[in-house]
Amino acid sequence: MAQTPEDLLLELFAIFVAAKVLGELFERFHVPGVLGEIAAGVILGPFALGLVHTSDTLHSMGEMGAIFVLFSAGLETSAHDLIRVGRKALMVAVMGIILPFVLGFFYMRLRGDASTEAIFVGAAMVATSVGITARVLGDLGVLATRTAKIILGAAVFDDILGMVLLAVAAGLAAGGRLEWLHLGVLLAEATAFALFMIFVAPRIVRRIHPGVERLSTQNASLVVALALCLFLSWLSAKIGMAAIIGAFFAGLMFADYAPHWNLIPRVGGITEFLAPYFFFSIGAQLNLKLFNGSVLIAATIVSILAVASKLVGCGLPLLSEGWPTALRVGMGMVPRGEVALIVALVGLQSGIVTQPTYAIVVFMTAVTTIIAPPLLRYLFRGEAEDLIERQV
Amino acid sequence: MAQTPEDLLLELFAIFVAAKVLGELFERFHVPGVLGEIAAGVILGPFALGLVHTSDTLHSMGEMGAIFVLFSAGLETSAHDLIRVGRKALMVAVMGIILPFVLGFFYMRLRGDASTEAIFVGAAMVATSVGITARVLGDLGVLATRTAKIILGAAVFDDILGMVLLAVAAGLAAGGRLEWLHLGVLLAEATAFALFMIFVAPRIVRRIHPGVERLSTQNASLVVALALCLFLSWLSAKIGMAAIIGAFFAGLMFADYAPHWNLIPRVGGITEFLAPYFFFSIGAQLNLKLFNGSVLIAATIVSILAVASKLVGCGLPLLSEGWPTALRVGMGMVPRGEVALIVALVGLQSGIVTQPTYAIVVFMTAVTTIIAPPLLRYLFRGEAEDLIERQV
Repeated sequence: MAQTPEDLLLELFAIFVAAKVLGELFERFHVPGVLGEIAAGVILGPFALGLVHTSDTLHSMGEMGAIFVLFSAGLETSAHDLIRVGRKALMVAVMGIILPFVLGFFYMRLRGDASTEAIFVGAAMVATSVGITARVLGDLGVLATRTAKIILGAAVFDDILGMVLLAVAAGLAAGGRLEWLHLGVLLAEATAFALFMIFVAPRIVRRIHPGVERLSTQNASLVVALALCLFLSWLSAKIGMAAIIGAFFAGLMFADYAPHWNLIPRVGGITEFLAPYFFFSIGAQLNLKLFNGSVLIAATIVSILAVASKLVGCGLPLLSEGWPTALRVGMGMVPRGEVALIVALVGLQSGIVTQPTYAIVVFMTAVTTIIAPPLLRYLFRGEAEDLIERQV
Repeated sequence: MAQTPEDLLLELFAIFVAAKVLGELFERFHVPGVLGEIAAGVILGPFALGLVHTSDTLHSMGEMGAIFVLFSAGLETSAHDLIRVGRKALMVAVMGIILPFVLGFFYMRLRGDASTEAIFVGAAMVATSVGITARVLGDLGVLATRTAKIILGAAVFDDILGMVLLAVAAGLAAGGRLEWLHLGVLLAEATAFALFMIFVAPRIVRRIHPGVERLSTQNASLVVALALCLFLSWLSAKIGMAAIIGAFFAGLMFADYAPHWNLIPRVGGITEFLAPYFFFSIGAQLNLKLFNGSVLIAATIVSILAVASKLVGCGLPLLSEGWPTALRVGMGMVPRGEVALIVALVGLQSGIVTQPTYAIVVFMTAVTTIIAPPLLRYLFRGEAEDLIERQV
């Protein structure tokens, strides 16, 4: 549906202001502002007041918002630090995938659902949506901490492995047969991409930076960074990972030069503008009316399992570092997001997943998204006080 | 047409890189980069290679790009300075409207076209599209000069008066009768809006700034500025002016606090990201195949009249300030843009304007858009060397 420029501007304005006003209200009550932005989407979205209709433009702006949230987070994360937490992050990711999948699968089987349906629910419980965590950690000004780096590193591995699980589920949906060769290729591509971006890409920037500074284009360093952010987001989506992981890698690549090139405030401006459309659209997709008695009970149980399994699965490998770190990382990995919804939607469309089960996954996504931010803030309260650089 | 996230990202990447690579090439040959961005649109657009198809999202991003170009320009313009050049700017705008309209009208009459068609061509020759000038002046780092302020001030008046002419033309197209009352209301609304934004709005910011700084939202000052930019752009479009004029006023409103709130780099980041989509889409709308012999001759003459009439009309009131200033302001007012195209399109759709005449207006828009940037840069060459703050 084509819009007049006035309609578009009014809609962009209304969403931006609604998200930010509710965010401010939530912040006043010491609840993370990002939750207010999501709540604005729930309230104004098509399933409640219906004041805002989703359009292509809005959808795209939300996607770009998620990309810039992760790009900004990447800019504040040095690859060097990520390598240092690499082994821990991998363990966190692996345990944080196995436990939710197993718990989700067996609970659904216990309820009497088919194996294929149970696999879908298990797969939907796996993929952490790190966009919300990154935003909360950014708001708290703790992206520079080791804990934040473990979370972001684990999210990278989580996405690589989650992608494989999604491919398994999609293979099941398509015809029941799994193509192991195809899966192997996917896994190899994603791993090679991640290793290249962490170990090689930052060196490329070091090599090309004198050339970038000699370019005649105004703000050449920002232009090059933005171009690579768009390219790597696309590439990441192309090989089957989430686009936001590519954006995170793009940020990582430029992190060492971010202060010198003054990238953080300038990319931060873009993030500040676009991110509310992402969080608003998350809220706008929630249909609260899908839930009745038995669905609500199952949904609550699945949600509890989803939270507990990430907390335990991701926290266990870090117990040696003390309870606070284990809990913070576990909670940081709790939010599920678009990947869970995509898995459920693929299942629904292929007839394997039923409407009530779909509603359960949507509910679980909402609960994990909504409870993680305030709990994260609570768990990080000590660390936030030690740091000052909150205002970029 | 809905797109997959991959397609969208690839398109955004391709456009951004094509625009910036051609921009860099042009800069190397001392031609303004913005022309390279437009050329990228011509080459990749639907009328040439056809590699990029215009989508709703792309269109919206272009619109937002234009808005942020003017918002950034406004942030670097103090209302105080604009008031100081007010009388001169008004004279520049008035003369710069009368001359193009009269010349355009009489040339078309001489050619044997109908009066109504001639009025449309005259009206299309009136409205300066200051987006391109603002970008060139910004690239040269001369937005702080008195000359730049006269240009931006005159563009504001030009838009108010151009809007009235557009209403006259639209009235003609609708039924031949002009509703003077309606016109009067439009004019009063636009004038009141402009006066309010220049004289009152900056004081409002001064009044509310302690409150803004007390907000709990992260980057509250940027959030408030962005919200007002969206709101005023919408309001401006709503009362019949160009949305970009509202964006310019929004910038003006915050100009005094821009350094304190670090707004210029952060809004500049958004502009850097979105502006290429605007300039690319200008290029993508040019169909070079519309032109044959007699159309080409008439189009060339109209283009010469369009350039000469603004140069003389806008330059004359400033002759007392010396030739350089007169020429710079005159050239700064030369580019015509979307308003000219809209006027022509309204005429075409109502059957008053014929296809060849439409092509003439499109050609004139292209020529004025393309020749102004290099000539502006040439005319400003002295001033640019005196200033240093090029890199934001």
